[in-house]
Amino acid sequence: MSRTSFRERDCPIAHGAELIGDKWKLLIVRNAFLGIKRFDDFQTNLRISSKVLSARLAEMVEDGILAKEDIKSDRRVKLYSLTEKGEDLLAFTVSLAQWSQRWKNEKSISIVTKNGRAPVAEVTLSSSEGAELRYGDIFITHGSRESADLLEIKRLLANRARRSSSLI
Amino acid sequence: MSRTSFRERDCPIAHGAELIGDKWKLLIVRNAFLGIKRFDDFQTNLRISSKVLSARLAEMVEDGILAKEDIKSDRRVKLYSLTEKGEDLLAFTVSLAQWSQRWKNEKSISIVTKNGRAPVAEVTLSSSEGAELRYGDIFITHGSRESADLLEIKRLLANRARRSSSLI
Repeated sequence: MSRTSFRERDCPIAHGAELIGDKWKLLIVRNAFLGIKRFDDFQTNLRISSKVLSARLAEMVEDGILAKEDIKSDRRVKLYSLTEKGEDLLAFTVSLAQWSQRWKNEKSISIVTKNGRAPVAEVTLSSSEGAELRYGDIFITHGSRESADLLEIKRLLANRARRSSSLI
Repeated sequence: MSRTSFRERDCPIAHGAELIGDKWKLLIVRNAFLGIKRFDDFQTNLRISSKVLSARLAEMVEDGILAKEDIKSDRRVKLYSLTEKGEDLLAFTVSLAQWSQRWKNEKSISIVTKNGRAPVAEVTLSSSEGAELRYGDIFITHGSRESADLLEIKRLLANRARRSSSLI
């Protein structure tokens, strides 16, 4: 996997995509949320080569998503568990599961509260007052400093609008 | 890219990972949310080969995330825009951006409401009553039917607990 391209891009989505935008990594996070910790168990469930799994796990440890732990009584056992940063991917991961289930119209898993077994709500975007927001309701702008990536896209769109205002 | 492995897995996260678990696809979705539509503009911004971009866009059209549109006045122009299913990735995408910004402690973009320019809330997991939920508060179980993938993981964990209850 390329380790360079997106890390240099000045955009949090690009940065996030570099860290977790990989189908194996998403499944590793899923399995870690479900309680899998051992290298062998990740491998058994993911049906992935030891080499590919090792590379993904090493990147995720380096990126602070997983922490690696050795067991003193058995040096062959390698355990991986979610760090606080990894656990903070919960809403992102559940949102992906809910999106899939909405569009497949199939509900093979259910995410419920431990306390009461009530279904968790669909992950949505909302205003600070709690109103649900959709694509047309929001606007992406610069933060406390300017994003070079966002600036480039805004220029691209402005040029396009100038050059072909009749087309699009 | 492999097109087979995860589509057959009986889990919405695996299905979602197959559809969108790719760093280029996440950036294509970001750019589409920002208003980019033309093949050339995606390519200019992503600095990606025409071949790689074409393959990703074709998969995303096939998966119903993007719709392709031709312009009658210029047959060379190919436009791609988010479908309703693609727009429904908004919370997922914003959640990724917010996660990156929280952990990089850097705020280069800001997502605000069009109406009032108020910042949108952090995407969180919440109960149906609106209480914020964290990893320790939830439980993943079978839905209206059983997930073969979840069943396999539960068996793996049960076996592991039996075999090495003193280790982990």
